[in-house]
Amino acid sequence: MTLFGLDEAAVAGLAEGVRPSHAPRAGMEPGLAGEVFARAAWTCIAEPGDGTAGVLVDRLGAGPALAAVLEPGSPGRLAARVGATGVPEGFAEELGQALQRWRPRLSAGEVTRCLQQAARVGARLALPGDEVWPAGVDDLGRNAPLALWWRGTAPALASLANSIALVGARAATGYGEHVAMESSAGLVDRGFTIVSGAAYGIDGMAHRAALASSGLTVAFLAGGVDRFYPSGHDALLGRIVAAGAVVSELPCGAAPTKWRFLQRNRLIAASSAATIVLEAGWRSGSLNTAGHAAALGRPLGAVPGPVTSPTSAGCHRLIREYDAVCVTTAAEMAELVGDRVVQVPLDFPGDSETGARGGAPGRGERTSDQIRVFDALSARSPRTVHDVARRAGLSVAAVQGALGGLDLEGAARERETGWVRAST
Amino acid sequence: MTLFGLDEAAVAGLAEGVRPSHAPRAGMEPGLAGEVFARAAWTCIAEPGDGTAGVLVDRLGAGPALAAVLEPGSPGRLAARVGATGVPEGFAEELGQALQRWRPRLSAGEVTRCLQQAARVGARLALPGDEVWPAGVDDLGRNAPLALWWRGTAPALASLANSIALVGARAATGYGEHVAMESSAGLVDRGFTIVSGAAYGIDGMAHRAALASSGLTVAFLAGGVDRFYPSGHDALLGRIVAAGAVVSELPCGAAPTKWRFLQRNRLIAASSAATIVLEAGWRSGSLNTAGHAAALGRPLGAVPGPVTSPTSAGCHRLIREYDAVCVTTAAEMAELVGDRVVQVPLDFPGDSETGARGGAPGRGERTSDQIRVFDALSARSPRTVHDVARRAGLSVAAVQGALGGLDLEGAARERETGWVRAST
Repeated sequence: MTLFGLDEAAVAGLAEGVRPSHAPRAGMEPGLAGEVFARAAWTCIAEPGDGTAGVLVDRLGAGPALAAVLEPGSPGRLAARVGATGVPEGFAEELGQALQRWRPRLSAGEVTRCLQQAARVGARLALPGDEVWPAGVDDLGRNAPLALWWRGTAPALASLANSIALVGARAATGYGEHVAMESSAGLVDRGFTIVSGAAYGIDGMAHRAALASSGLTVAFLAGGVDRFYPSGHDALLGRIVAAGAVVSELPCGAAPTKWRFLQRNRLIAASSAATIVLEAGWRSGSLNTAGHAAALGRPLGAVPGPVTSPTSAGCHRLIREYDAVCVTTAAEMAELVGDRVVQVPLDFPGDSETGARGGAPGRGERTSDQIRVFDALSARSPRTVHDVARRAGLSVAAVQGALGGLDLEGAARERETGWVRAST
Repeated sequence: MTLFGLDEAAVAGLAEGVRPSHAPRAGMEPGLAGEVFARAAWTCIAEPGDGTAGVLVDRLGAGPALAAVLEPGSPGRLAARVGATGVPEGFAEELGQALQRWRPRLSAGEVTRCLQQAARVGARLALPGDEVWPAGVDDLGRNAPLALWWRGTAPALASLANSIALVGARAATGYGEHVAMESSAGLVDRGFTIVSGAAYGIDGMAHRAALASSGLTVAFLAGGVDRFYPSGHDALLGRIVAAGAVVSELPCGAAPTKWRFLQRNRLIAASSAATIVLEAGWRSGSLNTAGHAAALGRPLGAVPGPVTSPTSAGCHRLIREYDAVCVTTAAEMAELVGDRVVQVPLDFPGDSETGARGGAPGRGERTSDQIRVFDALSARSPRTVHDVARRAGLSVAAVQGALGGLDLEGAARERETGWVRAST
């Protein structure tokens, strides 16, 4: 199969530039080069999250789907090839509209340029099913990425299955940055990879702290991996490439747009095991990431902050209205994905003699009778059991029982003329 | 019926001292004096929350129950009088223990002294069913108070049906005190009475702010209403008596004890329509109040704070583990008891052409196509519809539709050679 009139050798050459780990000298396995080329082309043609492309590629394969779009045939003929079973209702019409938006972007030169640029900067193309492919993004169904461009280390990319996304406001406060740093470092210590979006503020701090803790971290970008955004994070992104990975579904050369940021957010949510919003204003973009996580059924956490801080309002909103779990430590964040934290029961002292809420006292906790007897003791004046009973409003027998426990604990002592309090 | 050998005139005189509003000159209605005296006596004999006393008084009436306890008869005989129907299992045995703790406290002098002292400081005794009786405490069942001592204004006490409890740490931070002040003032503005425990820190600030806003506020104490606790809040409690009410189930002269604080907390939770914890350490006493509110099925709210602040750890714990609602403003607190706050939907832009999460755009919000078209426009270089379509990855028809909307909005303008972005 030839695409855009390129011969097999040319396609193989371009593909090898972005799949250097596969048979670096002897040539790629048959068919793979075409698949790499076609999926690279699809990242140039379709905007992120284009579900029509997703269905078409799923039905025909990336290469044949691309070839079909290249043919001048009518949408009806293409729809007929796809068939009517297993495709969404109204798919033929959807396909007609899609051809109108894809065809103006069909350009051999564009695809060639993006592959060459990728090879130049050391970017590779991950395909679904690759070892490094983040399986979580497949949960996006027809909106899943058709391929992912990435730079960095393969282990970092492969570790996404065990990752937690830390996202938040660009305009972070010192509090937010502190929490981002502590959370990121604490999660790295627990073996998690930190996913974020490389933005200023919370994102940047999450990446930085992961790197500082010698952890793995992955940044998802809204533009090509050859042009770092924001540019103020050039150095940081360079360090992430060196020790982690930078990923995008956009081809090299693509600029970030608002639309692409929103779609990038879905990849952050889908590729990680849980999403935590650390600090976010009432309409922060990180709430969009949270929304994707919730829609995917991924655990969602939010870190509370001062109610007087507008940059925590979005987090409180997620807790109040969107069932986000209130998380305050890295341990609690890890718990979202199954790492259990032992919980201490609340101290609700029961009233054993009065039948209200009770429960057995824990180790080292006083019974309600002991509380009342201890209350009735003085540190200076020894009191008889009968006096203590009257003061505590307990029976003599109950006082004797309670005094036994307090005595053992060292909290009460018997003198010649009665009992005294020995400590608080 | 005579109690403790006091004649009717003596009982009536003592009772009138704490029920001055009832027929101040002509004497009290028959029977009421005895009831007042007997319930006052029960507050001296039984510790707060004594469920055995609750059942006995409920079955026999306060006076006959008191008389029965005064008789030297065996517990079995008393249990036989109460009967076996409608009483808890094992009540006879329970009663035997109770007599042992009540009888040492039976003292005519004690009851007389407490009634005289109450009359002296202007304290009154509220009985169940009184107009000023806080109906909410009846939900405590057998652990409900048998009577309530109070000082202050009747309207304040009667307003408890429309009250919200604001409680929290003694060791409050500036943040906590600020939130307490704002919350209390905001709830007073919405017509709520503020309930709290008069402690240092959050409690005190909640009362103070209510008074400063000319609102009603009620303080529940763990000791007698004649001895203010803590003494550093003498002046504050004096002002609460003048403009609100101070309430306790303990008789005058009773000292606060740990046990009584815990039982006092149940009254705070039961008498108010909702309980809000504003700031609380991991094991703060206010969590006990929260536990009572939850056990009673009362709405429970907690104000988040910095996760770096130990005094907010208890609030976060209530949100995480005990289903407390995260509340950040007085409006949200009022919402807990039914005052609705209008919620703004989260901004999760959908991708109309890709089938992922969507939803109709709200008034003034851009559609996903409009976002993508606006992204593709330049403020300086006019671009043709076809150029915009290619850049946005949309069909020409979709771009034309989106441009129409952006034009109306004033965000895009058509020039001779194409479209430009007109504003952000």
